[in-house]
Amino acid sequence: MTVRLVGRAGEPASLAGDEGVLLGIDFGGTKMAVGVADGEGRLLASERVPTYAEKGAPQALDRALELAVTLVGRVGAPVAAAGIASPGVVRPDGIDLAPNVPGWDRLRLADAVRDRLGVPTVAVDNDLNAAALAELRFGALRDADPGLVVGLGTGVAAAVTVRGAVLPGHHGAAGEIGYAVAGGPWPGTMLELDFSGRALDRLADDLGVPGGAAGLAAAAERSGPPRDALVARVDELARHLATCCLLLDPQRVVLVGGVAGSDLIRGLLVERLAAVLPYRPDVVLSGFADDAALLGAVVLAREAVPAAR
Amino acid sequence: MTVRLVGRAGEPASLAGDEGVLLGIDFGGTKMAVGVADGEGRLLASERVPTYAEKGAPQALDRALELAVTLVGRVGAPVAAAGIASPGVVRPDGIDLAPNVPGWDRLRLADAVRDRLGVPTVAVDNDLNAAALAELRFGALRDADPGLVVGLGTGVAAAVTVRGAVLPGHHGAAGEIGYAVAGGPWPGTMLELDFSGRALDRLADDLGVPGGAAGLAAAAERSGPPRDALVARVDELARHLATCCLLLDPQRVVLVGGVAGSDLIRGLLVERLAAVLPYRPDVVLSGFADDAALLGAVVLAREAVPAAR
Repeated sequence: MTVRLVGRAGEPASLAGDEGVLLGIDFGGTKMAVGVADGEGRLLASERVPTYAEKGAPQALDRALELAVTLVGRVGAPVAAAGIASPGVVRPDGIDLAPNVPGWDRLRLADAVRDRLGVPTVAVDNDLNAAALAELRFGALRDADPGLVVGLGTGVAAAVTVRGAVLPGHHGAAGEIGYAVAGGPWPGTMLELDFSGRALDRLADDLGVPGGAAGLAAAAERSGPPRDALVARVDELARHLATCCLLLDPQRVVLVGGVAGSDLIRGLLVERLAAVLPYRPDVVLSGFADDAALLGAVVLAREAVPAAR
Repeated sequence: MTVRLVGRAGEPASLAGDEGVLLGIDFGGTKMAVGVADGEGRLLASERVPTYAEKGAPQALDRALELAVTLVGRVGAPVAAAGIASPGVVRPDGIDLAPNVPGWDRLRLADAVRDRLGVPTVAVDNDLNAAALAELRFGALRDADPGLVVGLGTGVAAAVTVRGAVLPGHHGAAGEIGYAVAGGPWPGTMLELDFSGRALDRLADDLGVPGGAAGLAAAAERSGPPRDALVARVDELARHLATCCLLLDPQRVVLVGGVAGSDLIRGLLVERLAAVLPYRPDVVLSGFADDAALLGAVVLAREAVPAAR
């Protein structure tokens, strides 16, 4: 099937007639985002809903698809292609390493979107890889090489860009730094159990600080046990990000995800990296707020349409 | 100047008349190697001499150049191009991050080789990058992508290969993991001070084990304080290599350098990586023994000659 995309080749985007729009879905461990975009990747409609991860994967997928049907109906144009961003390592018949939503490993995301929305072309990739693709095409990595994207959200992960492309890795698992060996004597603990949004939520609970990770970051503005505890966690994250920066010598590091939004955490990280790296990359917050992976899903869709390459 | 290389385009290599040979020099913190190769990169003559790093950089460079003149004379053919592998980050007017040989930072290696040997084309790169180039062209990374080369020699460093090329990094400093943050509370110590050949030599001295790093590895074959001490150092190295593997998801990891030659150290490393990585790369010892960087220098020379690209 050949699809003409809205707004390509310099034409202004339009929703006219039978031209196609792009559907993007970003499945996160805490929230899911669905967006409909024109052929240039500009969002025409988007919405974000909770994942309710503890209720399992099928209900999350169902609600996301329902939202997609609603948004596509609202825009009123056929879908040329869909892109899906998911945590974990995307295989043709499922997803590996996505422990934050029970049952996610057994979902066939592309098939589900194809069937429910009647979209012939569906691309799926890891959420951080999708975010990195959005940064490469529209964001902070347009003019930076190599690039490192670090996701500090429900989980901890990264993505690497080299010469204009996202590095998939041999098993499609590049960037899974949540499995890094953190803390104490070997084999310590997993970095993701030490520094994810969930880990910081638990730390806040343990310290009796209300408001989870955000509350902890607020309490850590002044000295005291919450700050000491948070700083120790940032030290461990910084240790691993320093190794990543030393290995790649990135021109720019882009932080994405809810935890990265904390000025305090970002500031502590930047300070620590500057103290140990002989060559310092720019460290910036993604300009896409929470939409990096969603926009990446839209780019995945756009680049999956043969005519759009 | 256009140079015809010996043995290109499928012809058998020969040393005939006015065709050129390739000169490679690998400067290491402990030893320096000089080799003369035909156009296919086959060594025709090579020799290795001590660096005597403590006596400073100029004497080391002088002796390497003298050896180069001798070997080129012995082969009896003009030099088409030279390649130099050096520790540190190669700048046009010097070398950064090469602390193991005092004064190395102020050497203009390319100019020195050009002047002393009358070679018009001289390429210089980091020694691990050169080793990775040799692995890509002739060795363990010919059929593996991405690739990670880890150098465990006088220092600790790495190199990354992606889609058939060595990743230079934004400042030419990719792979400098010797600066990784090791041990104890932040900022701990540098990984290179914990795990290089020199660090293990010191550790052996401290434990009263004769024979330096090699003696330590031998003593660590049985249980006891030398083994405990060495295992703790391997744990720290493994922590950082795990992060590197998680970030890149390499198909193959190639270990080079004197310390990597220890079966015990290699075995402990492989075991630790296997225990924590969800996707395990092959981990192999370079097939080039001590010659990976020297062969890489020869490839640098070959690829610097326009006609040879």
